[in-house]
Amino acid sequence: MRLLLQEIRRSPMLWLLVFVPVVFAAKQTRPEAHTMLFVLSVLAIVPLAALLSHATESVAAKTGDAVGGLLNATLGNLTELVIALTALRAGQYMLVKASIAGAIVTNSLFMLGASLLLGGLKHRVQEYNRVGARLQAGLLFLATIALLVPSAVSKADDIAWTDFTRHLSLGLAILLIVAYGLGMLFSLKTHREFFGSSSHAEEGEAPWPVSLALAVLAGVTVTVALVSEIFVESVQEAAKSFGMTQAFVGFIVVALVGGAAEMASAFSGARKNRLDLSVGIALGSAAQIALFVAPVLVLLSYFIGPAPMDLQFWPGAVVMMLIATLTANLIATTGRSAWFVGVLVIMVYLIFAMTLYLLPPRTA
Amino acid sequence: MRLLLQEIRRSPMLWLLVFVPVVFAAKQTRPEAHTMLFVLSVLAIVPLAALLSHATESVAAKTGDAVGGLLNATLGNLTELVIALTALRAGQYMLVKASIAGAIVTNSLFMLGASLLLGGLKHRVQEYNRVGARLQAGLLFLATIALLVPSAVSKADDIAWTDFTRHLSLGLAILLIVAYGLGMLFSLKTHREFFGSSSHAEEGEAPWPVSLALAVLAGVTVTVALVSEIFVESVQEAAKSFGMTQAFVGFIVVALVGGAAEMASAFSGARKNRLDLSVGIALGSAAQIALFVAPVLVLLSYFIGPAPMDLQFWPGAVVMMLIATLTANLIATTGRSAWFVGVLVIMVYLIFAMTLYLLPPRTA
Amino acid sequence: MRLLLQEIRRSPMLWLLVFVPVVFAAKQTRPEAHTMLFVLSVLAIVPLAALLSHATESVAAKTGDAVGGLLNATLGNLTELVIALTALRAGQYMLVKASIAGAIVTNSLFMLGASLLLGGLKHRVQEYNRVGARLQAGLLFLATIALLVPSAVSKADDIAWTDFTRHLSLGLAILLIVAYGLGMLFSLKTHREFFGSSSHAEEGEAPWPVSLALAVLAGVTVTVALVSEIFVESVQEAAKSFGMTQAFVGFIVVALVGGAAEMASAFSGARKNRLDLSVGIALGSAAQIALFVAPVLVLLSYFIGPAPMDLQFWPGAVVMMLIATLTANLIATTGRSAWFVGVLVIMVYLIFAMTLYLLPPRTA
Repeated sequence: MRLLLQEIRRSPMLWLLVFVPVVFAAKQTRPEAHTMLFVLSVLAIVPLAALLSHATESVAAKTGDAVGGLLNATLGNLTELVIALTALRAGQYMLVKASIAGAIVTNSLFMLGASLLLGGLKHRVQEYNRVGARLQAGLLFLATIALLVPSAVSKADDIAWTDFTRHLSLGLAILLIVAYGLGMLFSLKTHREFFGSSSHAEEGEAPWPVSLALAVLAGVTVTVALVSEIFVESVQEAAKSFGMTQAFVGFIVVALVGGAAEMASAFSGARKNRLDLSVGIALGSAAQIALFVAPVLVLLSYFIGPAPMDLQFWPGAVVMMLIATLTANLIATTGRSAWFVGVLVIMVYLIFAMTLYLLPPRTA
Repeated sequence: MRLLLQEIRRSPMLWLLVFVPVVFAAKQTRPEAHTMLFVLSVLAIVPLAALLSHATESVAAKTGDAVGGLLNATLGNLTELVIALTALRAGQYMLVKASIAGAIVTNSLFMLGASLLLGGLKHRVQEYNRVGARLQAGLLFLATIALLVPSAVSKADDIAWTDFTRHLSLGLAILLIVAYGLGMLFSLKTHREFFGSSSHAEEGEAPWPVSLALAVLAGVTVTVALVSEIFVESVQEAAKSFGMTQAFVGFIVVALVGGAAEMASAFSGARKNRLDLSVGIALGSAAQIALFVAPVLVLLSYFIGPAPMDLQFWPGAVVMMLIATLTANLIATTGRSAWFVGVLVIMVYLIFAMTLYLLPPRTA
Repeated sequence: MRLLLQEIRRSPMLWLLVFVPVVFAAKQTRPEAHTMLFVLSVLAIVPLAALLSHATESVAAKTGDAVGGLLNATLGNLTELVIALTALRAGQYMLVKASIAGAIVTNSLFMLGASLLLGGLKHRVQEYNRVGARLQAGLLFLATIALLVPSAVSKADDIAWTDFTRHLSLGLAILLIVAYGLGMLFSLKTHREFFGSSSHAEEGEAPWPVSLALAVLAGVTVTVALVSEIFVESVQEAAKSFGMTQAFVGFIVVALVGGAAEMASAFSGARKNRLDLSVGIALGSAAQIALFVAPVLVLLSYFIGPAPMDLQFWPGAVVMMLIATLTANLIATTGRSAWFVGVLVIMVYLIFAMTLYLLPPRTA
């Protein structure tokens, strides 16, 4: 407990934890103040995500490389998973899909681009290990193809197609999880020496004892789930009052909130000229969403949602995921970066964000 | 003749030749047993394709490098060409187009991916000559663009567009053949030293004398044509009884049957750590289908088909060809491989195969 | 003045200047002879563009590298800009858009491909600096994404969408100009040592004195504007009498006319084995059209056009720009070339040109 408090004292982001009780109190006293609840829940999720991330890494550090890598790989996007599960249980499939697509696009464009820019502003030219970046970019490419196929071949207005899309989505979900598992086998076991040190933990940062880490993991996951419920309930109304489209909220806001903790690590790595770390977090996180979180949500929708969820996305989202993946692949093949590369990648993200922000309200 | 028998004794695949008389007998006695005829014709085509391939290489080995390369390049996909011609004469344009698209996708994803996987399971990291792979991938890229343009700009339901698509397809067919010819000039004549030994013949395998090879070439081509007729007639009915969609049969089954002989060579090359050979066969064969077989079919449709054939494909097939080409280009630029690269490429193929298998029956 | 005359005597292309008075005279005497006026205006624009290009470089050479680079970068496509402005003022938005898309495609496919082919016919293998090519290809990639987004997400037949497309186009125009500015900052200031000598001026060619250059710049710009008016008025009627579609004229003819001067420099550089120069001109010019000319036209349409212009393109044009960009990016990553690479790139251009030529008259 002292270690936890010490951690909180050192990291300014964790001071935001004060908003966790505040958001629950606000929910009790003013359940109709959607905009306020939305803002408070965002402020509460960000530090919880940071705690979750640190707890996962502490457990991973103790359990040895193979199991640790596995843990990092499966729990690394726990926040996104919990938020999406809450939306899934509420039957808000459009929000679930938008947040999947948004997390892929945000991680592989904004997180990557901002890392390259921040690193490039401090260091003239930065080099990084291409092997890891290529693996993640390759997995991302595979996943994007899987996610675009149902949208590419389906015709929406037909009963036969609904069944087809559902079966296809189930099959694709299984293929993606298998590919993800084989990718871990490859990078953590058979060819691990090619991937260098991809440990997320910062140097000089002591990991927590396992018991504390496990307790935090359990407690914080539950808390995130509770806050997520307030977040999902309030997000639609809040979006209206901010004049934001639903698509913008799902794609941009949810993705930025869910990924805040990882972004902090990625940006700090880039400033310290450890671009391997930043590129690994950004592309690894995007690949994890696409190959693990998305399929798990499809599978779980058969048990906890009101109806099975398919992987048919709004065509605009498919185009955006495809371009994000292509950009990540082009970047990953070079292995060198300067500030302008970051600008280019961020610009692509801004183009998408602007498009979603301006979209007429009725769509996607 | 003794050499031919010796060859048959040594190669287990050629024992399947026994199905050639069986399929003709079955056709006479039970012309309505479509499923059985389909299975028998598949079993008969596979060894015939292997013979055809060996005969072509034997002639090529005798005629010197330039003419030999030309022969290999034009007759290398003779089986696919004969099957497609049979379907063309029967007016089954959908099957012809599906088998073109399917051969491109199967060769550049399944044959390539399985080679990389099989090689990678035996050898930790494999290197290969990028120059040859890039030429083939570049040609494939060009051809895919040519094949997607008619589908991208046309609107189906308009008389003016039918004429347009037909003229455009004819023009594209001529452009593709010219590009293919120039590509051979480049790789066999002006810059041949960059391409290394791309001989398909296995080491230690004695080529046949030219007279035997030419006789086998002529005789087997006629036999393949006759068996193809049974295959094309029975494939639709058989598909129904197996619960397979037409698209799946054209795309996957025909392509796997037609390419079986080349796959055997590619896989054996990969196991022997001669990945140059495998990548060359896979991408070269895909490029040949796209730049030689497809345009030749368009040109011949003016003489032997019931009506001119155009190059307008089902949109899903266009997407699949495009992704297959893009994947091949991404792979070809690296020059190194490990088992997981093969897994990624095969996964893309499985995504497509699953999509086609699940497709509702009425579509393409 | 003597210098100007000397220049004209030396360069055969400038003899075409005689067509400048001829076209004005013809306009007065036979205003209905559209085909003749079209041909004469083309013949008059080509040498004017060459003069404009030489004047810009002379000013740039005198003003030092940074300002000079800026001048080259903004005025390098002055001819295209003036032609497009004339069409914009006449409210011919379809022609404006076709000429933007056409200039991007023509520069990044035909100018690049013909340079690689011409260079490759003389030199066995040519190498070039990849850093500059990559920057331009990256900028082009960004711009193409910006230009395709409005077409990808919009539905044409809806009032809400018209407003959306207009706002989005305005936002995108601003983003593109910012990206272009940052790109110049990067290549001319912070990381200039990576880009080598990208001076367009031919060796041994004396720049003009600044006063002459400025006078030529002003005078010729006005003349180009006047000739452009005749060109824009006559182009539609002339197209009909040549049996060319509108799309072909906008895409191919206008782009070839506007880029003639740059093509002359690019081809001559390639023959002299200075492929850096050729690739820089081709991709730089395409990037400039996409990131500077196109957004400036959108912004100016609010002041001089009958109505604001958006960036929604005909879907076929979007596909062509996307493929041109992808091709340029694939080429730019290699850094080596032989004649066949040029053939491949030109073939892609021919596929597009043929498609546009055959297009039924009613479309785009």
